[in-house]
Order: sequence, then structure tokens, then C-alpha cells
Amino acid sequence: MHTTMLRSLSLLTLLGISSLSFCAHSSAFTEAEEAVEYRQSALQLMRENFSVMADMVRGDIDYDAATFETRAEAFYHASHLPWDGFRDAGENFRGDGDALPAVWENWDDFSQRIEQLKSDAKALSEASASHDMSTIRSSFMSTARNCQQCHDRYRE
Amino acid sequence: MHTTMLRSLSLLTLLGISSLSFCAHSSAFTEAEEAVEYRQSALQLMRENFSVMADMVRGDIDYDAATFETRAEAFYHASHLPWDGFRDAGENFRGDGDALPAVWENWDDFSQRIEQLKSDAKALSEASASHDMSTIRSSFMSTARNCQQCHDRYRE
Repeated sequence: MHTTMLRSLSLLTLLGISSLSFCAHSSAFTEAEEAVEYRQSALQLMRENFSVMADMVRGDIDYDAATFETRAEAFYHASHLPWDGFRDAGENFRGDGDALPAVWENWDDFSQRIEQLKSDAKALSEASASHDMSTIRSSFMSTARNCQQCHDRYRE
Repeated sequence: MHTTMLRSLSLLTLLGISSLSFCAHSSAFTEAEEAVEYRQSALQLMRENFSVMADMVRGDIDYDAATFETRAEAFYHASHLPWDGFRDAGENFRGDGDALPAVWENWDDFSQRIEQLKSDAKALSEASASHDMSTIRSSFMSTARNCQQCHDRYRE
């Protein structure tokens, strides 16, 4: 075992990343429950950011450009996260209030919608920099429509 | 109220995004507890992806290039999320096993470390595309060192 490898191991031990603290596994999820928790947690992060933007688009709270941009950027990053939890150990496994079996029966459609959502989220983050509510609203509503259609088909 | 606005409101109602389902607030977090939950949840998503990469760098599980790239990309996106939860309602508020007051006493240093981490995560995601473990290990260890130093200073 060469020096670099030894130094790596020491630092990982320092970090508490040892065989004792993490199980060895070949994907992020050894257990289906973990995968469900991961995806639900990531979807909740999306929801929290989305809801602030919705409040501003609807006019329930005053539009604040800096807050909207922050939320749009966070939503963009969060939109990349939930989907791994639908694969590997999470495949064909459902938690409470979770995905319908249709997700895995229509995986190609589901995957296309995910790609569309990431692209919508990127456009929304870019639109948020315009500070123009009619530009922002149009982009926000496209994203919202995608969320809605996917929930109609795939959410319990 | 013009037509576009009305259409927006209808779709938001369909989505269940009404005043009843979300409180009106000026940031993502009305309550300090929500902000703590948000940041801890986002940090947990980072940890789950990081631990899979650590297992592969340490050799506890076989290196799988596709899995490593997926985890590195997810870690990159997740690395953008926790920090908003340290601001607004989450500022100077601590949950269980959470941030030390030093976070807010040294906000400039904390912020610089966040920027460094995002940059490390981007480099790691790029390195993962090389499929070369010595390139990947070097980038991974820089990231790990940053995690460790920040935890030493700022985590309970």
C-alpha cells in the first residue's frame, strides 16, 4: 500500500468515514427505505423553494428579486437530486404517500419528464435574473405545469 | 386582474399551492426549526453521496465509474443547498447536533469555505469523468479535507 493511499485512509478515518460508520455497498442505497427517504427528502427541498416562488408569483407576498433568484437557483440544484432514489434499491419500492407503480411501468416517460423538469428549472433560474415578473411568471408556470402533469400520473 | 394572472392562479390552485397549503412568508423559512430541518436534510443528502465515493476511494467496495460519476454530480448539486438554512430564520439558531455559534461569529470565513466546497465539488465531479482513480482520489481528498476543517470549526 503506497503512501498516498495511506494518507487517504488516515484522513478518511479522521473524518469518521470508516467501515464502522458506513456500510459497504455498491450504490447509495442498500435498503429500499433509505432510497425512499432520500428521494422524499430531496423532493421536499424542491417543494420548499418552489412554494416561496409560488407565493411571489401569486402575489401573496411581495416579489423580492434577490430571494426569488436564491430560491430559483436552489430549486434548480434540488431538481437534480430525487431521481437516483427511484433506481437501484428504490426501484419498484414504494413508501407512504409515495410514487405509483406507474413510475417504473413507464420509466422512459418518467425519465423524459425529469429531463424536462431540469431544463425548466434552469430556464426559471435564468428568468429570475431578468427581475421582470411577466418573464418570470411564464417560466414559472411552465415548470408548475410539468410538476402537475407528473404528479397526476405518478404520485399517489 | 388580467387573463394571464387568472390562468396562473387557476394552475396554482390545481397544484394545491394555495394560501391554505403554504403560509405567506418573505423567505423560505418562517420558523427557525424549518430552516434547521432544511439545512440538516440537505447536509444528509451530501453525506449519503459522499459516503459512497469514500467507500470506493478507500477500496471497501469496487470502484464503479458510472456510480461514482452519478454520486459526484449529485454531491455537486447538493453542495449548493444547505447554506440558505443558516440565514434568515435559521440565523443564530441551533438544532440538535447542529452548527456552533462560531458559524455566525465568523460568517465571512464560513462563507468562503462554502464557496471553496462548491468549487471542490465541481472539480470532483469533473475528475470523476476521467475514470482514473489517482486523479479522482486527489480531488476527493481535497474535498474531504475541506469538509473536515469546516466540521472541526463549526459543527457541534
